[in-house]
Amino acid sequence: MKGQLIGVGVGPGDPDLMTLKAVKAIAGADVVGYFAKAGNVSHARTIAQTHFRPDTVELPLLYPVTTEIHRHDDAYRTAIGAFYDASAAAVAEHILAGRTVAVLSEGDPLFYGSYMHLHVRLAQRFPTKVIPGVTGMSGCWSQAGAPIAQGDDVLMVLPGTLDEAELARRLATADAAVIMKVGRNLPKIRRALAAAGRLDRALYVERGTMADCALVPLAERADERAPYFSIVLVPGWERAA
Amino acid sequence: MKGQLIGVGVGPGDPDLMTLKAVKAIAGADVVGYFAKAGNVSHARTIAQTHFRPDTVELPLLYPVTTEIHRHDDAYRTAIGAFYDASAAAVAEHILAGRTVAVLSEGDPLFYGSYMHLHVRLAQRFPTKVIPGVTGMSGCWSQAGAPIAQGDDVLMVLPGTLDEAELARRLATADAAVIMKVGRNLPKIRRALAAAGRLDRALYVERGTMADCALVPLAERADERAPYFSIVLVPGWERAA
Repeated sequence: MKGQLIGVGVGPGDPDLMTLKAVKAIAGADVVGYFAKAGNVSHARTIAQTHFRPDTVELPLLYPVTTEIHRHDDAYRTAIGAFYDASAAAVAEHILAGRTVAVLSEGDPLFYGSYMHLHVRLAQRFPTKVIPGVTGMSGCWSQAGAPIAQGDDVLMVLPGTLDEAELARRLATADAAVIMKVGRNLPKIRRALAAAGRLDRALYVERGTMADCALVPLAERADERAPYFSIVLVPGWERAA
Repeated sequence: MKGQLIGVGVGPGDPDLMTLKAVKAIAGADVVGYFAKAGNVSHARTIAQTHFRPDTVELPLLYPVTTEIHRHDDAYRTAIGAFYDASAAAVAEHILAGRTVAVLSEGDPLFYGSYMHLHVRLAQRFPTKVIPGVTGMSGCWSQAGAPIAQGDDVLMVLPGTLDEAELARRLATADAAVIMKVGRNLPKIRRALAAAGRLDRALYVERGTMADCALVPLAERADERAPYFSIVLVPGWERAA
């Protein structure tokens, strides 16, 4: 029996937003891997765990604690690169033993997901397939009932980590936008949206497809603290009938 | 019993890429609606039909033939607006009779989907929910095994209908890009990618999650004809380890 790697998107949070294909891949895998911060639960594991078999081998891939190092430092890059190398080696060992390893990703594996760091290290060496998933942003705009883009709209996906002037400049030329990695960047994002004249259309979404989802116009949200995985949406389609 | 509207994303093509939630909604609906061109099959129906019940009422919403009118003409807008109004009225009649109407969308309902035209007409009048789906673009980059965006990458979704200069300008400032609605725009898209210095990274994907999927570097694809639903991907993450 030949080993293989499967990157599995488990969707934005609601376990019912997993695809049939993801469920089959997880139920059929010998080993299920997932990334998590040391000491934290893996959200992807929480979403998918009802489909694990009693004999499923779990392979947690635990990020090293690097909070004291800035993420643009060489020291951070070295530490995180070594972690991904070690994670890939752990997965490879199972594949070489003939096992199917499913690696879970929240949302979609190849859309800003940690799985990609394994994919680029292993896809040339082993049979590999990727099962796409519903993204966090789709979960959010569906929960909001907000048509995001239509017709000739240009949609931009912008990391909230960009600097304020660049965010404002890009937002001014987008018909629709999704701003990810909000967290501590919220005050800056709010100023950039105001500078681009788009603050009035912006929606703030927290835990998009969870039971405790929070959804408000950004202009009405006074609190400047936000969790890292919250999202800001600027729906396009201003000509909607 | 109270009627309701459910917009259901059925994913990019492979029936196994439907979500558990979409399958339950379709199996539980009294009426299943879908858009199609007159004389053509509905792709969304083909994807979802194994989950219809024997007593499911089907509601095909057939686009009027407008090929002789340019889509920026007032005559086109009037014809298509009247069609969406009539479609919304047909759905509303079922909801008013207490039925649950599931309207199918390829991909994700609120991401460039026809369902949006019903949503904006009905969501204020009736209980409405939207079930997100895997987008066509996720299906394509997963099939390609191409990590699309990571870290601080800016991803742009661009309709191939934009003019050449605008396409080139936007492509030059995007870390990653997805170009939709390729079809007859392929020669123009190729020139814009070359002008932006991105042609060497571009992938051409046809029927992303189908068994007969075609995937080639765009630079190697000589033929200038392409189906409307093909996609061009420009993967980001150039610093991938």
